Amino acid sequence: MPKSRVEAFSDGVFAVAITLLVLDLHPPSTHGSLLAALADGWPEFAAFALSFAVIGIIWVNHHAVFHRIARVDRTLLFLNLGLLLSVVLIPFVTALFALYIAHTGDQADLAGALYNADFLLVAIFFTAINVRVDTEARLRREHVPPTSPAQRLRFAAGTFVYAACIPLSYVNPVLALILDAAVAVFYIGDQLGSRTAADD
Amino acid sequence: MPKSRVEAFSDGVFAVAITLLVLDLHPPSTHGSLLAALADGWPEFAAFALSFAVIGIIWVNHHAVFHRIARVDRTLLFLNLGLLLSVVLIPFVTALFALYIAHTGDQADLAGALYNADFLLVAIFFTAINVRVDTEARLRREHVPPTSPAQRLRFAAGTFVYAACIPLSYVNPVLALILDAAVAVFYIGDQLGSRTAADD
Amino acid sequence: MPKSRVEAFSDGVFAVAITLLVLDLHPPSTHGSLLAALADGWPEFAAFALSFAVIGIIWVNHHAVFHRIARVDRTLLFLNLGLLLSVVLIPFVTALFALYIAHTGDQADLAGALYNADFLLVAIFFTAINVRVDTEARLRREHVPPTSPAQRLRFAAGTFVYAACIPLSYVNPVLALILDAAVAVFYIGDQLGSRTAADD
Amino acid sequence: MPKSRVEAFSDGVFAVAITLLVLDLHPPSTHGSLLAALADGWPEFAAFALSFAVIGIIWVNHHAVFHRIARVDRTLLFLNLGLLLSVVLIPFVTALFALYIAHTGDQADLAGALYNADFLLVAIFFTAINVRVDTEARLRREHVPPTSPAQRLRFAAGTFVYAACIPLSYVNPVLALILDAAVAVFYIGDQLGSRTAADD
Repeated sequence: MPKSRVEAFSDGVFAVAITLLVLDLHPPSTHGSLLAALADGWPEFAAFALSFAVIGIIWVNHHAVFHRIARVDRTLLFLNLGLLLSVVLIPFVTALFALYIAHTGDQADLAGALYNADFLLVAIFFTAINVRVDTEARLRREHVPPTSPAQRLRFAAGTFVYAACIPLSYVNPVLALILDAAVAVFYIGDQLGSRTAADD
Repeated sequence: MPKSRVEAFSDGVFAVAITLLVLDLHPPSTHGSLLAALADGWPEFAAFALSFAVIGIIWVNHHAVFHRIARVDRTLLFLNLGLLLSVVLIPFVTALFALYIAHTGDQADLAGALYNADFLLVAIFFTAINVRVDTEARLRREHVPPTSPAQRLRFAAGTFVYAACIPLSYVNPVLALILDAAVAVFYIGDQLGSRTAADD
Repeated sequence: MPKSRVEAFSDGVFAVAITLLVLDLHPPSTHGSLLAALADGWPEFAAFALSFAVIGIIWVNHHAVFHRIARVDRTLLFLNLGLLLSVVLIPFVTALFALYIAHTGDQADLAGALYNADFLLVAIFFTAINVRVDTEARLRREHVPPTSPAQRLRFAAGTFVYAACIPLSYVNPVLALILDAAVAVFYIGDQLGSRTAADD
Repeated sequence: MPKSRVEAFSDGVFAVAITLLVLDLHPPSTHGSLLAALADGWPEFAAFALSFAVIGIIWVNHHAVFHRIARVDRTLLFLNLGLLLSVVLIPFVTALFALYIAHTGDQADLAGALYNADFLLVAIFFTAINVRVDTEARLRREHVPPTSPAQRLRFAAGTFVYAACIPLSYVNPVLALILDAAVAVFYIGDQLGSRTAADD
């Protein structure tokens, strides 16, 4: 099967999910100070910005992974559906985390753990897709070799950080949020370097 | 008429519908225990996961059916619109079923019947599209034969299960939900087998 | 400029608008009888079904009009944006009309007038796009002649009915709804006949 | 990397964002006069119409900019993500501005400043994309020269107006809204003229 509709469907889901994030930004009630309300709502904005960046980076990586692919089989279709499932959950776990950081002293830990568990799920499906593409030569475009162990490790780096952020959320959920943001920044730079050399 | 825009429009509707499902997942109020609230909300999550799987499988099958098609006529366009109508209703019947399983003792039966009635509608429109493609050779790509009776029966299997789940919802709506999930799992495996042999 | 992105963007807007209609279907409160609540909610379902059919037919017609086009200029881009604006308003006027039919004795007239005024806007922008394509030969594909007066009249039939339904809403808003539905059914049949002969 | 998926993903985000604007139009309560409620709700409708026009124009300009591009690199991907981030925020700042104009005497200034700050962000990312395309010849299609200083100035005109509207919102937020609308109208005309000569 050709890959064009998989890309179109995935791009659609990414586009809707990244845009739905805005529905979790609520204009504050007009009864109090707008400035104070916006300042108090910082977890909403921080989680929005981080989730936007994460979905954006997922899309860029999806772009890069499918650039190596010539055709898809049903296994790949369903792995991709698993990836999309975890992406679709991002607006929910984002809203949950933002709400609990802003309004509870003690339950933000579980909310943060779920937030990072969903990112971990994304990373796991991405790794599974990559492994499938590496092991099934007929799915790859001509002259595209399997990824090197170093590339695979770098690509999977997020997996370990997200896994570590699950228990870390129980220590300090805001710290886990900052670490997630650091991963996002790290991914931009690192991928940029390797991509220019390997894929263009 | 070429089929490209039908695929693009359908992919758009599938992508929006599958992503809108997340709007029915509500972060619980911060006044109680988050863990208990998430545990109580299991019907929401179960219905979300099942509906995601069902729309995902619909998309994969739509992909497979249109892979056999070379061009579309207006009859096919309107049959496809009927299919999309029943897909667009999925987030509504999902929210309805989840709400009534969680909060009522006795009315989940009707909600479950409507949930399965919508899946039945999907199955009926799919069958109608397939019959149209089988009977109108000019719509098919070259060298694509009509489906065999065995393929047609397997493709239509869901129709019978969804039809049976409508009365079953009045006996036990959770059992109907489990049976729907079993159909989803069955479809993944079965289609995978036949596809590899017949279509690639 | 090539037309591919105009089609992709328009398909995206149509897909989102037609799917957002489902957000106006609300699961009834679990305190009363579900069956009675669904029966009372008939205007919601009728307006949903009608608006779905209307957007579906708009998409089919958009498909047919752009099938005649080879390239677009900025005038056409902005006429198309006007068409999309009126399509995006459909979920709002649908929710408004359904709410006022269901809950008010006397104000459904204005809501019905706005509902039909939006459909009129769609029809006007469609006519403007058609006129533009007819008068600018360089926008049309090779060998595609301008539409005949008879075709133009048939294509514009909805314009007159929607215009008439605005005052009719003040007499009987439910009758206007029924007339809108009749137009939708009429369009399916009529266009089907003419299309098969002229465009395939 | 080819540009097709960037266009598809961007078109998806534009389509969802422009359509989500309708979610901020709320049918008024059925307890009062519908006509009076709609009249009172003019800021909602004005902000909806303006934001629709702005996203529409952004899309047309995105179309024109990417028409000059042959391929994308990761820098361009992330600049484009920045543009999309500011587009996704438009429904939020629109709802915020409309709410505060309608319901508060004094806090509409901050809401108006944020509305224009988001438009400024859009303009800045657009300029950055343009500069990148102008300085990296390998990203442009063959025979496409860098933009002239006059074109660049005209393209960037909105930047200055949006920047000026931020302090202006503290003087008169409705005036800022009117100026934004004037910019939108100006852009339609101006771009139309230059485009016809330069790009077709």
